[in-house]
Amino acid sequence: MNIGLDVGGTYARALAVDPVDHRVLGRADASSAGDGPTLVATLSGLIGDLRATHGEADAVGLGIAGLITDDGTVRHSPNLPGLVEFAVGPALAAAVGVPVACGNDATTGAWAEARLGAGRGHDHFAFVALGTGIGAGLVVDGRLITGAHGFAGEAGHMVVDAHGPTHLTGQPGPWEYFASGNALGRMARQAAADGRFAASVAAAGSVEAVTGHHVTEALHDGDPDALAILDDFCREVARGVANLVELLDLSLVVLGGGLADIGEPLRAGTDRWLGRLLRAADHRPAVEIRLAELGPDAGALGAALLAADRPG
Amino acid sequence: MNIGLDVGGTYARALAVDPVDHRVLGRADASSAGDGPTLVATLSGLIGDLRATHGEADAVGLGIAGLITDDGTVRHSPNLPGLVEFAVGPALAAAVGVPVACGNDATTGAWAEARLGAGRGHDHFAFVALGTGIGAGLVVDGRLITGAHGFAGEAGHMVVDAHGPTHLTGQPGPWEYFASGNALGRMARQAAADGRFAASVAAAGSVEAVTGHHVTEALHDGDPDALAILDDFCREVARGVANLVELLDLSLVVLGGGLADIGEPLRAGTDRWLGRLLRAADHRPAVEIRLAELGPDAGALGAALLAADRPG
Repeated sequence: MNIGLDVGGTYARALAVDPVDHRVLGRADASSAGDGPTLVATLSGLIGDLRATHGEADAVGLGIAGLITDDGTVRHSPNLPGLVEFAVGPALAAAVGVPVACGNDATTGAWAEARLGAGRGHDHFAFVALGTGIGAGLVVDGRLITGAHGFAGEAGHMVVDAHGPTHLTGQPGPWEYFASGNALGRMARQAAADGRFAASVAAAGSVEAVTGHHVTEALHDGDPDALAILDDFCREVARGVANLVELLDLSLVVLGGGLADIGEPLRAGTDRWLGRLLRAADHRPAVEIRLAELGPDAGALGAALLAADRPG
Repeated sequence: MNIGLDVGGTYARALAVDPVDHRVLGRADASSAGDGPTLVATLSGLIGDLRATHGEADAVGLGIAGLITDDGTVRHSPNLPGLVEFAVGPALAAAVGVPVACGNDATTGAWAEARLGAGRGHDHFAFVALGTGIGAGLVVDGRLITGAHGFAGEAGHMVVDAHGPTHLTGQPGPWEYFASGNALGRMARQAAADGRFAASVAAAGSVEAVTGHHVTEALHDGDPDALAILDDFCREVARGVANLVELLDLSLVVLGGGLADIGEPLRAGTDRWLGRLLRAADHRPAVEIRLAELGPDAGALGAALLAADRPG
C-alpha cells in the first residue's frame, strides 16, 4: 500500500491507498497540535496504525498547509506556527524508515483531482480549496506546478484589493480575505448587523455568533437572505478565478475545500459571476466550473499519488 | 533563415534570424494599421523584403498583441481592433507559402529571454513587458506556458484593486492600470497637478502634456520629483509581481517593454518594493529581478524560435 498524509491547522489525516486502483483501504485521524517533533510522533503513530492493519508502506506522501519545500522543510504556515523552519519530511522519513514526498496540501489535492477526480481530462485547471483560507493547486499542460521551491499555488494570497482591509498576513486585500470560509462568516454577520438574515441570528443566539455554517444551512431552506449573501460571496470567488484564468488560460476550475459542501449553488453562482467579470469572456471558450469530487480526502490522496510517482 | 514577426498596436517588425546561432541577420519594419487582409499584405511585404536579401525562410513565427489562438486566430486585441476574429496565421501562411507559428507577443518575448536573454538558467520566471499596457509570458519548469488555447500570460488584466478605477477594458483596477506606461504618465500628470515636477511641466508646456517620457528623462538628471514618482510606480509594479510569485513560485522576474529603458532605477525599486510587499519574504529564497536583455526585438526573436521549434 501507499500512505497519504494531510496535515491542516486542526487535524492530521492518514489514508492507506491501494497502489494500483487508488482505493482508500483505511484511514486514521489525529489532532495536528504541537511542535514539529510532536507532529512527527503523531504521524508516525497514524502510519503505525495503518501498517498494523494493511501491511508495509511502499511510499509515504505528506501534504501540509503552508509553504513547504520540495525536500520537506516548512518555511511558513500561519495555521501550523510550531512547524516553521522544521524539516518535517526528513524527520518523518527517519522515524518511519520510508522516504516521504512532501507538498502543499492544496497542491496535492489538485493532483488527486487531476488523476482521480473532477480534473480528469483537463490539462489546464486550478483546484481551489475554499476553507478557512484559500489554497490552490495548478495543473498546466497536464503537469502539476510546484514552482521553483515547492511553493506554487498560493492563490489565496494574491492581492485583489490593494487598498482593501489588511489580512492577518499583513497584506492588504488578498483573495482569501474576501472568498474564504472566514469571509462568508463575516459577510453573514454584516448582513445580520444590517437587520437581515434574522432567522439565522435567532438560531445563532446573536449577530456575533453567526458563522458561514449558518449560511450553508439557511441555503438548504432557500432563505432569500442566505441566497443574497452567497451571491456576493460567489462574486468574490469569481474575481480571483478570473485572475487565474487571465494568467494561465485555464479550461476548468475545480472548487473544493469545506465550502464546496454548499454544492451546486456555489458552482452556479461562481460560473455566472465569472462570465460577468472575466475580460473578453465573449471571445474565449467558456471556462468550466466544477465541484471537487474527492472531498476532504483529496489532500491525502494526492500526497499518496505524489509519493508513488516520486518515491524519495 | 527563420523569420520572426512582432505585431503591436503601432508597428510590425520582421527579423531574419540565423537558425543556428539566432543572430539577427536583417530587419524590416512597417505600420501595423488596417484590417486583417491589410496586415497580411504588410507582413507578406516585410517577409518578401527579407527573402530578397537573405534567401528562403525555413520557418515563420508571429507574435501579436492580444489573445491569439495556437492556430492563429486573433480573438481579442484592444490595440488591433481590426484583427478580432481574423485568422491571421492561416491567411499569412497561405500568402507566403510557409507555415506560421503564432503566439502572444509577450509570450514569444518570454521565450526569447528564456533561450537567449535574461531568463537563461532559470526554469521558473516571468517576463513582464511594461509598455502602453502590461503583457507577460510565463516559463514554468523550463517550459513556456501557453495555456488551454494560447491565451496564458495576460497578467496586465489581473485585478489588483477590485474597487479601483475602471480600465478601458471595463474591468476595475487591473494591474496594467497602475503599472504600465500609461500609468506612469498619469502619475506624472498628477504630481504636476499637485505642483511638483515643475521643470518637466515647463519642458512639456503644460500639466496635460506631461507623459511618462518626461519622468524617464528627468530621472537621468536625478530630479527628486521624478525619483518619487518612480518609487510609487515601482510599488505598483511590485504589487503585481508579488501576485505572480505567490501563484507560480518564480525564482526570477524579467522586466522588459519600453519602460525597461528606465534601467537600473526601475529594477532596484521593484526589487525593494517586492521585499516589502511579498508575504513571508523572510521565509523564501529571494526572487531575482532583472532587466530584459533583448530589448524591442524580444517578441520577434521569440516568434522565430517558436517557429523553428514548432514548424506548422
